[in-house]
Amino acid sequence: MSATIVALCAPAVVRYYQVRFTSCRILPIEGKVREISMEEYAANLKSVREAAERIRGQVHVTPVLSSSTFDLRSQAKLFFKCENLQRIGAFKMRGALNAIMCLPEDHARKGVVTHSSGNFAQAVALAAKTCGIPAHIVMPSNSPQVKRRAVEGYGARVIPCVPTLEARETTAKAVQDETGATFLHPYDQDEVIAGQGTVALELVEQVSKLDAVIVPVGGGGLISGIALALRELAPNIKIYGAEPLGADDAARSKAAGTFIPQTNPNTIADGLKTSLGTRTWPVIRDLLEDIIVVDDEAITDSMRLVWERMKLVIEASAACAVAAAFSEDFRSRREGKRIAIVLSGGNVDLNDLPWTKTL
Amino acid sequence: MSATIVALCAPAVVRYYQVRFTSCRILPIEGKVREISMEEYAANLKSVREAAERIRGQVHVTPVLSSSTFDLRSQAKLFFKCENLQRIGAFKMRGALNAIMCLPEDHARKGVVTHSSGNFAQAVALAAKTCGIPAHIVMPSNSPQVKRRAVEGYGARVIPCVPTLEARETTAKAVQDETGATFLHPYDQDEVIAGQGTVALELVEQVSKLDAVIVPVGGGGLISGIALALRELAPNIKIYGAEPLGADDAARSKAAGTFIPQTNPNTIADGLKTSLGTRTWPVIRDLLEDIIVVDDEAITDSMRLVWERMKLVIEASAACAVAAAFSEDFRSRREGKRIAIVLSGGNVDLNDLPWTKTL
Repeated sequence: MSATIVALCAPAVVRYYQVRFTSCRILPIEGKVREISMEEYAANLKSVREAAERIRGQVHVTPVLSSSTFDLRSQAKLFFKCENLQRIGAFKMRGALNAIMCLPEDHARKGVVTHSSGNFAQAVALAAKTCGIPAHIVMPSNSPQVKRRAVEGYGARVIPCVPTLEARETTAKAVQDETGATFLHPYDQDEVIAGQGTVALELVEQVSKLDAVIVPVGGGGLISGIALALRELAPNIKIYGAEPLGADDAARSKAAGTFIPQTNPNTIADGLKTSLGTRTWPVIRDLLEDIIVVDDEAITDSMRLVWERMKLVIEASAACAVAAAFSEDFRSRREGKRIAIVLSGGNVDLNDLPWTKTL
Repeated sequence: MSATIVALCAPAVVRYYQVRFTSCRILPIEGKVREISMEEYAANLKSVREAAERIRGQVHVTPVLSSSTFDLRSQAKLFFKCENLQRIGAFKMRGALNAIMCLPEDHARKGVVTHSSGNFAQAVALAAKTCGIPAHIVMPSNSPQVKRRAVEGYGARVIPCVPTLEARETTAKAVQDETGATFLHPYDQDEVIAGQGTVALELVEQVSKLDAVIVPVGGGGLISGIALALRELAPNIKIYGAEPLGADDAARSKAAGTFIPQTNPNTIADGLKTSLGTRTWPVIRDLLEDIIVVDDEAITDSMRLVWERMKLVIEASAACAVAAAFSEDFRSRREGKRIAIVLSGGNVDLNDLPWTKTL
């Protein structure tokens, strides 16, 4: 997919585009109008809108909540987009469903396969069930029983494997060869990214005059979808990523201007341990204002605060975005602004809460 | 306050009214029209509507959420009215604010006083702050520090007392005498009941064609307000109370046809330990379809299920209504029906969760 945008704006604003879209070719044309031809990103407003149309009625339009306590503490107006209230308890349902619904019928019939121990496993299982096709989920043998049962509960076939990335990929490949199922990537796939971008369409309908949005960054599928939709729909909204200190590959890659994969991630935010992908890295490189890095203590504190004050169960990955919003680093960019925070998910083991561990 | 309703209906339906409103005088008049003159209840649709107008903008219109998992399990269509997302984390804010806003200016100026260690303490503190008047909260000296700090955080004065009902009442009386503040009752007061009834106005706007609503019963303020509003607004909606086995005074009173106060309550649902009051008992006697009694194990299981599947932090008192909806006793009245469940609050000590206790 490719996009062409025509920036009808004064030079100062064009410069702003130049800074944000570092990989653009800027073509000077007559007068103040410049045509900016973009490289092939994973999605654009059109593909995100098509995804929204495709998955409508099968995913929740999640509510946006606010809290005067949080507003007072942050000196900002914060809007929490509750993807923890999405089906399967996370935004992943959007992308998985869009990807499956994009499959040609002869491919779809043979089913889908993925390897995941997290939210994408449940999302693919439920999306496949919704579409009436088989799902094969390769899960590391050390995955919690509760997660395995959840996936099986949606009618998917679980294939256990040795808990290494290599074994996961080999096993998934074997399932593909055996069944003819199509492989779905949790984030590095255009249809998945377009599906996640539907969060942005809802957000701009639900909240007016946003100044910024903060999104947790793991593989980068969610933030890429959002950034690619907003770039055309509301280019004035700044996009900030939030990353844990123990898995800050996006921040380091962006600072270096080149993709640096994550090795040995170490954070409480399970869902954010993955590296960026080839489809998400260019978006993060070009379209994000900044990436805010926070430590696990801040993530745990924010998680607890949201549970206590907002009465919402969110997982540590979602709390990472809240911690970023409240970080000292972000203070001057926060105060007096209208900022959306994407609460990406709420799948938590209630027997293993971070604050009960330390008691 | 009194209400007159004119039932334009066939005899069968009038009999239905006779059953539900056991204390009505039925006056036969010409033709099929009968005028039913009611005794003086605590509120009516008019006073609830006035309360809604009064508190508008100072309380949240709380969302209604649904869950396909819960619908599947219950074989009903369930609508969860999220008063846990109300300000101070519970419905109590509605009644406290209405009561304070009803005070004549010269009384209001002198402030308000109540005795409570629970949600009503926080509600009065925040409502008084909202109205710019002093609040004096008598709290048992064994109240958790976190609750005391929350109340003080809203700018209220906390007066500790010996943890007996007698000491609480004596201390509150002394504060009244000293300051001229007006005493607010957590449930047995007409303005408080009318305020809680505003939940019903939102509910019928948000969900069409409800068959029933299930509400937890402690002192009975919430269910009375809801029943009195719905009686005129949507008399076909059946009202069910939910009570814990260890504090089932409403169920026992209703069965006996006479008010039996609760002694030695013993339940995990802290907020439901109180006895009914003189203003709430007649409503519960006359307008409720039934009261469903559930044990603490069912309450704990339901609480955990809502946290895990709906990603909502609810307190045990709210979970009591969920447990009632899922109880075997209620199955035949549930299946195929559209039922609202009022999630009354979400104030929980995260260090002291029922399921971590038993590990």
